[in-house]
Amino acid sequence: MAQLRIALAQTNPTVGDLTANAAKMLAWTRDAAERGAHLVVFTEMFLTGYPVEDLVLRTSFVEASIRTLEESAARLAEEGLGELPVLVGYVDRAGLAPRAGQPKGAPLDAAALLHRGEVVCRTAKHHLPNYGVFDEYRYFVRGDRLPIFRLHGVDVAVAVCEDLWQDGGPVAVVGQAGAGLLVAPNASPYEKDKDDVRLELCARRAREAGCPLIYVNQVGGQDELVFDGDSLVVDASGELVARAGQFREELLVVDLELETSGEPPAQTAYDAGDGSTITVDRFVLSQDPVARYEPLPAPLAAPLEPPAEVYHALVLAVRDYVAKNGFRSVILGLSGGIDSALTAAIAADAIGASRVNVVLMPSRYSSDHSIADAEELVRRQGINARIVPIGDIVTAFEKEIELSGLAAENLQARVRGMILMGLSNEHGHLVLTTGNKSELATGYSTLYGDSAGGFAPIKDVPKTMVWELARWRNAHGSPSFAMDAAAPIPENSITKEPSAELRPDQRDTDSLPPYEVLDRLLDDYVEKDMGSAELIAAGHDPALVTRVIRLVDLAEYKRRQYPPGPKITPKNFGRDRRLPITNRWREEA
Amino acid sequence: MAQLRIALAQTNPTVGDLTANAAKMLAWTRDAAERGAHLVVFTEMFLTGYPVEDLVLRTSFVEASIRTLEESAARLAEEGLGELPVLVGYVDRAGLAPRAGQPKGAPLDAAALLHRGEVVCRTAKHHLPNYGVFDEYRYFVRGDRLPIFRLHGVDVAVAVCEDLWQDGGPVAVVGQAGAGLLVAPNASPYEKDKDDVRLELCARRAREAGCPLIYVNQVGGQDELVFDGDSLVVDASGELVARAGQFREELLVVDLELETSGEPPAQTAYDAGDGSTITVDRFVLSQDPVARYEPLPAPLAAPLEPPAEVYHALVLAVRDYVAKNGFRSVILGLSGGIDSALTAAIAADAIGASRVNVVLMPSRYSSDHSIADAEELVRRQGINARIVPIGDIVTAFEKEIELSGLAAENLQARVRGMILMGLSNEHGHLVLTTGNKSELATGYSTLYGDSAGGFAPIKDVPKTMVWELARWRNAHGSPSFAMDAAAPIPENSITKEPSAELRPDQRDTDSLPPYEVLDRLLDDYVEKDMGSAELIAAGHDPALVTRVIRLVDLAEYKRRQYPPGPKITPKNFGRDRRLPITNRWREEA
Repeated sequence: MAQLRIALAQTNPTVGDLTANAAKMLAWTRDAAERGAHLVVFTEMFLTGYPVEDLVLRTSFVEASIRTLEESAARLAEEGLGELPVLVGYVDRAGLAPRAGQPKGAPLDAAALLHRGEVVCRTAKHHLPNYGVFDEYRYFVRGDRLPIFRLHGVDVAVAVCEDLWQDGGPVAVVGQAGAGLLVAPNASPYEKDKDDVRLELCARRAREAGCPLIYVNQVGGQDELVFDGDSLVVDASGELVARAGQFREELLVVDLELETSGEPPAQTAYDAGDGSTITVDRFVLSQDPVARYEPLPAPLAAPLEPPAEVYHALVLAVRDYVAKNGFRSVILGLSGGIDSALTAAIAADAIGASRVNVVLMPSRYSSDHSIADAEELVRRQGINARIVPIGDIVTAFEKEIELSGLAAENLQARVRGMILMGLSNEHGHLVLTTGNKSELATGYSTLYGDSAGGFAPIKDVPKTMVWELARWRNAHGSPSFAMDAAAPIPENSITKEPSAELRPDQRDTDSLPPYEVLDRLLDDYVEKDMGSAELIAAGHDPALVTRVIRLVDLAEYKRRQYPPGPKITPKNFGRDRRLPITNRWREEA
Repeated sequence: MAQLRIALAQTNPTVGDLTANAAKMLAWTRDAAERGAHLVVFTEMFLTGYPVEDLVLRTSFVEASIRTLEESAARLAEEGLGELPVLVGYVDRAGLAPRAGQPKGAPLDAAALLHRGEVVCRTAKHHLPNYGVFDEYRYFVRGDRLPIFRLHGVDVAVAVCEDLWQDGGPVAVVGQAGAGLLVAPNASPYEKDKDDVRLELCARRAREAGCPLIYVNQVGGQDELVFDGDSLVVDASGELVARAGQFREELLVVDLELETSGEPPAQTAYDAGDGSTITVDRFVLSQDPVARYEPLPAPLAAPLEPPAEVYHALVLAVRDYVAKNGFRSVILGLSGGIDSALTAAIAADAIGASRVNVVLMPSRYSSDHSIADAEELVRRQGINARIVPIGDIVTAFEKEIELSGLAAENLQARVRGMILMGLSNEHGHLVLTTGNKSELATGYSTLYGDSAGGFAPIKDVPKTMVWELARWRNAHGSPSFAMDAAAPIPENSITKEPSAELRPDQRDTDSLPPYEVLDRLLDDYVEKDMGSAELIAAGHDPALVTRVIRLVDLAEYKRRQYPPGPKITPKNFGRDRRLPITNRWREEA
């Protein structure tokens, strides 16, 4: 047995900002060295940030990634950190001849080991996820290697992210090839209730590989994705040994007692169980185990409970979207209702109350309590507020065109959207929209009205959870964020009956079923892709199933706000070019 | 040698309307029978329409597709058409156990042969395109079979669409397995200048297979895709034998002289050259060649020249988007400029002038010629027009909030967008936007202003081509569309200098380089993914490269109109659920 101290760099990179990410790698490696680590592991594609979408198809970008990697290896040595091996993710290329169906330039979702100023070995992800938020067959070609490097007598195998999730491939080979430790850099987005799945997965793979497993995950907001960190270490039996916190950067340092390895098997090519052959590459960094030392206690952060976890995810997402896109402030409309109240609270917790601007935009249909509740919220949170009545503007429209019913209701929402966009354009605030998932799913929202803006903090939060989060936030604070206001949301905003207030005495329940019923149905229809027969079999009311499916399918069309148009070239605008919004990569002339 | 008469059903299905598509298959098969065909070939996924995106992940949809196929086989026989074999595309499932990374339900992009009331054989696409507009690793699993059926003594092999485009797979096996004819159902979208690529590809595959090849393609608009048809037949040497027209439905009937086949080889499993094994399935429908008959002359449509081809693509796209989504009329803003003039002409050609509504929305900055040119266009085209001045509405906004510069310019564009959306909501017209590709690429457009609407006919047309199309339309008509107005676009709209007219004496060239320069640069940067070094090496001005890259990258953000928001579940709204807009599939309770 031999000891190793591993530093898991649970970091928040910025997509495209290779210079800043490389600088962070240097700083964190120095920190790890000072804490006596024998190996530092950064996250998947850390040098470029993840995901980079169509940037990866640009030769200049891939070249910059490779150059940054090689320069970083040299730089670490120059700074006296060359003896500490660093495993880091980046983008490489496979050097394959172009062929139909292969991404331009044959890019690789790669990881490399840096040591003594050199890039010791390079590998790349084998399994490419192409479901949910992933489109990796569009961007990468498969890796087909399993690097194993000997560090102080311990053979350390490397696999990237999805290679843990799918059967076969490099991870399936680790057991046969023999390794004392398996390390996996990841960029695995947060999903409610996902973390137990990860622990279970890591435990299973550790048992299959017959050695401890180190799982290092990205943290931070990236457009609509939030990475939660939650990096962890399991032993060879799958027991949890160490765990980092969620939604925060952390250098998790853990001491492990590992099997040393003898002469490696002569075999280098293995049937990977998925129709492919994986080649094992072996490297020796150091043969002798380190002198025995007193291990540090392993940090073991407790995962957050569901409402806290979701609230932290939303706060981090807003903070990073604002900061990484270079905004300094946000603006939103405040109605006195619960959705805008919660959104304002999240924004204030994310970037500080002084950078949050709200506009109260009363109309002829606004109730007295709407203004009072909104003003109470402004007072509690200490955010910046102004009042812009919309009555005269609506009247000016009505003098020119005759609108009735829904068209007249939409007009009011659109006037409010235009006021926010105008103030955004004038003052540079990012517009936050305040729609929740139940509304957006059913189309209970106005195109170019309340849905106009740059970021939608609660668009994936069902209405019932909006209330839950508001109650949780009023009852709790959190040490990990600058949550100043004790109970930022007026009680009346939480308890009153929801209304869009676009016509007299309007109630959400005039158009929608009760939210407790609706949210359960939406979850089954949208998240679980159940058809109507399955929904009815699951106990939903048949008439309601028909009605809600119709609403949701109609709303799908409305959500396609940027109109499609006929394509006559490979890439038209709006849907075809997929660049991250949060992206600091700049071509230079 | 034996004769066969093949009918290529170049059809326009509607996504999700399985009943209508099945009815069309029956009607066209009857037509083919009356014309003496020995085989009818429909397009890829004809019964469901293509593409169906996330619908394919719903069990109920896949079941309906399979049921429609089987009922259609029986129905054809009941209607006395059972002796005529029909090859048709649909969605099937592979029956694989679920595993990580595999699309839910393991769907197949399938094709089946119907004969004498039965489904004689089923196959599925092997190569899944996952680039450009295709995301098929998200939706399908691979097929691994090559069906060969003997028809009147000729062995006919079947391959689906992408299997022609990529090397290896079923098509690579045809030569060894031996076939007298290869038929390929396709759903291959139109791209400017693409059709020669298709002919070249078909010729190469025919030579490789050693037999004639029949390529049957879908026609019609489907959201942003336009399928052009252009079905074709090449002989074993790759020479073009027959070709259907573009942008129209057509039953292309062609007589072929084909090699009869002897005893098939005993081998059934073949190395497909791409790491996979393809299994050949053989079926015998009929052994004896048909009695010799006098062949019909082969129709050989001439492809359209570029401006005509693009114009026809745009007209068909608008017509199908309007009709398939159940609209009866469109509305757009008319400025007197060339973009809205061309858009109005396309709309009138697509659905008839009486269903086109335009709104002239002059402001304090509108020039006299703008109104005059717009009115002249209305007169020439006979479309419905009204005038809604925006001055008082803009003033009402300005009384409530202080906007200057770009924010004030955007306000005017947004007031116009709101007027169009209001009239759309009130009267049910589809809003057409009028932005061209050069503007949209550089962000010379207002979010929620001129970009607000449901369909964008010229969003993929660079400005220089806008002028070219306008000149072409004024000089030509076309027998294939109801193009009434002789020269629908006022000459002055074509020749005058472009201006957004959002401030006094504004010109596009105040903000943008000349369009001839800009459009060439955009093509290299966007379509060809060139980085800045490549752009400069290609002869573009370095300062302009830097400036335009910045504009385009900024505009990418603006185009993400529906704001992203943090995901906390597998599917939030706006980006994750991918349903076709043009879709008639309805779940039934």
